[in-house]
Amino acid sequence: MSLTLSSACLPVFQTMLANLDHCLAKAEAHAAVRKFDVNVLVQARLAPDMLPLASQVRIACDAAKLAVARVGALDAPRFADDETTLAQLRERIAKTLAWLATVPANALDGQEDRDITFPVGRDGATRTMKGEAYVKHWALPNVYFHVTTTYALLRHNGVDLGKADYLLGAQAGA
Amino acid sequence: MSLTLSSACLPVFQTMLANLDHCLAKAEAHAAVRKFDVNVLVQARLAPDMLPLASQVRIACDAAKLAVARVGALDAPRFADDETTLAQLRERIAKTLAWLATVPANALDGQEDRDITFPVGRDGATRTMKGEAYVKHWALPNVYFHVTTTYALLRHNGVDLGKADYLLGAQAGA
Repeated sequence: MSLTLSSACLPVFQTMLANLDHCLAKAEAHAAVRKFDVNVLVQARLAPDMLPLASQVRIACDAAKLAVARVGALDAPRFADDETTLAQLRERIAKTLAWLATVPANALDGQEDRDITFPVGRDGATRTMKGEAYVKHWALPNVYFHVTTTYALLRHNGVDLGKADYLLGAQAGA
Repeated sequence: MSLTLSSACLPVFQTMLANLDHCLAKAEAHAAVRKFDVNVLVQARLAPDMLPLASQVRIACDAAKLAVARVGALDAPRFADDETTLAQLRERIAKTLAWLATVPANALDGQEDRDITFPVGRDGATRTMKGEAYVKHWALPNVYFHVTTTYALLRHNGVDLGKADYLLGAQAGA
């Protein structure tokens, strides 16, 4: 067995987005027990000039989706960035996971050396990386960054999570 | 060119630890400008029951080091968890990077299907995963988790960082 480009990222994206959803579900349960509106968390930030939780979840989803679409030259569904509730953010994760599940491994495998050009920042700049480097040094760290930042936001706001929730999702404590 | 177990993790660990060091260097520069003791950040936490920055940096280093040592059946140097300054934490990163630089790719390649058993939690429990799954679903997410949490801690404390610092380290803005 050897690693492939698809096996290095598709199952990782799927696991991490499922675990992100698990953490949001625990936030909902926490809010129900503490009797506060869980949707106040949607605009929570760790710093005034950091993006709020809603954006962290959207970008985690889109970083995975767009990486797969770019490497595989696939059309990915677009989602409006209009979620205002945790339930809607969980739905975005579900839609992203549903699309990722349709992607065949051979759409990505063999693209290791192909140039991938993608936008960076908001001024129209682009960056070009080979497929393998793009997955390892751009797409994966981006997904992990936004999943972990969401976790940190929830922890900072008192949600009872541990690293096992991040690593194992619904299998945590099982 | 195809991915290998070593190429999926060694350069990623090295890049992410170098970028973590870059973020700590920016924290030092920020503290110098604002004239506060940068070492107050060593005990900063995002929640009272989360580990402080010192532990986040130590675990980021050790998660990378121990993963490579376990997969490659190598002896890794042990470091005392006694850092009290940011400079000492940066030194731990440097020592970890120095050791990672000595690891040959062929120590890891070919270990994809070997059982890796490692401790989890503090009660002596262990977990066993195949080499490839261990790297993709345990070691890498752990390193990313602790690097990103350190970033979040610094951002929460006002250090002027952007995601490019996390993704590109010293090449950010270059």
